[in-house]
Amino acid sequence: MSQLSEIDYLQQQINSFLTNKLDQLTVNNEKLLAAMRYGLLIGGKRMRPYLAYITGKALNVESKDAQAIGAAIECIHAYSLLHDDLPAMDDDDLRRGQPTCHKAFDEATAILAGDSLQTLAFDIIANHTFSVYSQTKQVKLIQQLVNAAGYQGMCGGQAMDLAATDKAISLNDLEKLHALKTGALLEACVLMVAECAEQVTDTEKQQLAIFAQSIGLAYQVRDDIIDITSTDEELGKPSGSDVAANKSTYPALLGLQGAQEKAEQLYQQALQALTHLPYNTQTLSQFATFIIKRTS
Amino acid sequence: MSQLSEIDYLQQQINSFLTNKLDQLTVNNEKLLAAMRYGLLIGGKRMRPYLAYITGKALNVESKDAQAIGAAIECIHAYSLLHDDLPAMDDDDLRRGQPTCHKAFDEATAILAGDSLQTLAFDIIANHTFSVYSQTKQVKLIQQLVNAAGYQGMCGGQAMDLAATDKAISLNDLEKLHALKTGALLEACVLMVAECAEQVTDTEKQQLAIFAQSIGLAYQVRDDIIDITSTDEELGKPSGSDVAANKSTYPALLGLQGAQEKAEQLYQQALQALTHLPYNTQTLSQFATFIIKRTS
Repeated sequence: MSQLSEIDYLQQQINSFLTNKLDQLTVNNEKLLAAMRYGLLIGGKRMRPYLAYITGKALNVESKDAQAIGAAIECIHAYSLLHDDLPAMDDDDLRRGQPTCHKAFDEATAILAGDSLQTLAFDIIANHTFSVYSQTKQVKLIQQLVNAAGYQGMCGGQAMDLAATDKAISLNDLEKLHALKTGALLEACVLMVAECAEQVTDTEKQQLAIFAQSIGLAYQVRDDIIDITSTDEELGKPSGSDVAANKSTYPALLGLQGAQEKAEQLYQQALQALTHLPYNTQTLSQFATFIIKRTS
Repeated sequence: MSQLSEIDYLQQQINSFLTNKLDQLTVNNEKLLAAMRYGLLIGGKRMRPYLAYITGKALNVESKDAQAIGAAIECIHAYSLLHDDLPAMDDDDLRRGQPTCHKAFDEATAILAGDSLQTLAFDIIANHTFSVYSQTKQVKLIQQLVNAAGYQGMCGGQAMDLAATDKAISLNDLEKLHALKTGALLEACVLMVAECAEQVTDTEKQQLAIFAQSIGLAYQVRDDIIDITSTDEELGKPSGSDVAANKSTYPALLGLQGAQEKAEQLYQQALQALTHLPYNTQTLSQFATFIIKRTS
């Protein structure tokens, strides 16, 4: 299967996993459930579940375990988008070419749907029947999810992002911000799956972490580049919105060419990390290429 | 120790547990951490941790385990208050006589602080070193926390509450709403601690659940009564705010005397449930009395 069709296949798999999970919830409030469904299933590349899936393939982890991990992390990602889009945060009307959740529903419902999706992430890991070897790891997996999602991970990064608006920040601070805001969840995709593998050494985990951090940052640099070089239609939201929101970006700090060089350097760093791993990492390296070449 | 001084003592204990937990977080963003601290430590009766504590005493559960459970549930409760107070939700300026979190900080920070406090709840349970017997229960405890906090618990109840605003709802629907919005967390205090006990039968857990549900509902009925019979000063927020917000309340549905009778009936139901338990439940019954007699 080519990488693109494998991504399509995985998207279907993960969407049906998440749909099943939502279907199992007893109906208390249809509107809230509909908003959760909207936030979780309206689209998205499912990059995080895909990364979990291919890491699992490389490390010989049962695919159902990697799938649960990917689905949980996708719930955290989806909840963060619902809250980030709110008027008090980024105030975005469109997401993936569709009205944002608070536009399609209302603000209160979007806040609650985000809250419920965060809980759902922990629900998925705590209620998944892991394969025998991974069962004892369930608490450790929840610790990792906590670290990636909370104050010391994504939420902390989001707060740094808010603090950096309308203010010039250093390249170092921008990297730290993205390492938390975007990087922490991508790293969790890789390391949580590695936790379920039978024989992954700490050194190998470190290389996997470097790989994930590098593609996470490369993704963000690429995102900043795409934001200023694409049309509204290609983006599914207004282009140049980062600039309009006075956010520090890599092109703003390094120039467009400098940002492109930065992305290339991170790409090489990711590939380099993979060379230290005694597994078939071909799909992981193809994924790094996909991140760096993408145009939307 | 009298019940009041035991509550004071427990408040100090739980506050220092939560302070320690916050102090362990590496500083990414001081403003967000300050907002989390504000939301978690600004005050509050610590009713939930106290209930977890006295349940632990009755069932012979190690107090440090009951404390961790109470602290985690308090984090869920605190995050829900931060989000409920937002302009898009209840739009409250005061909480416990102090500016609400979004007034003391800003809306975006209050949203993120709430999000981070939810993660912190799972952090506490996943990272607590439970006593030997309870260790194997950690995943089960997280499942219980998920059920109490998420769509099928508190968040679902909050959505039902929003849907019920400006609309007359039946007594049955009002009870269902509160069973989720307030009751689910109180029930979790009791049942999560019971999960850590060595010999509690399923029948006993059912009675504990009835006890918790009854005092949860009694608490809410009492809250509705206090809202219309107290001054702003006694409440620390404007009195009659439920009526002003067009919320269905017990006094509105049953009249003031009917509501008082309802509270008394729930109180008796709670005491009745305790009689089925082969433990010293004196403090639990005192707690039920405290709930029903409270004036603020």
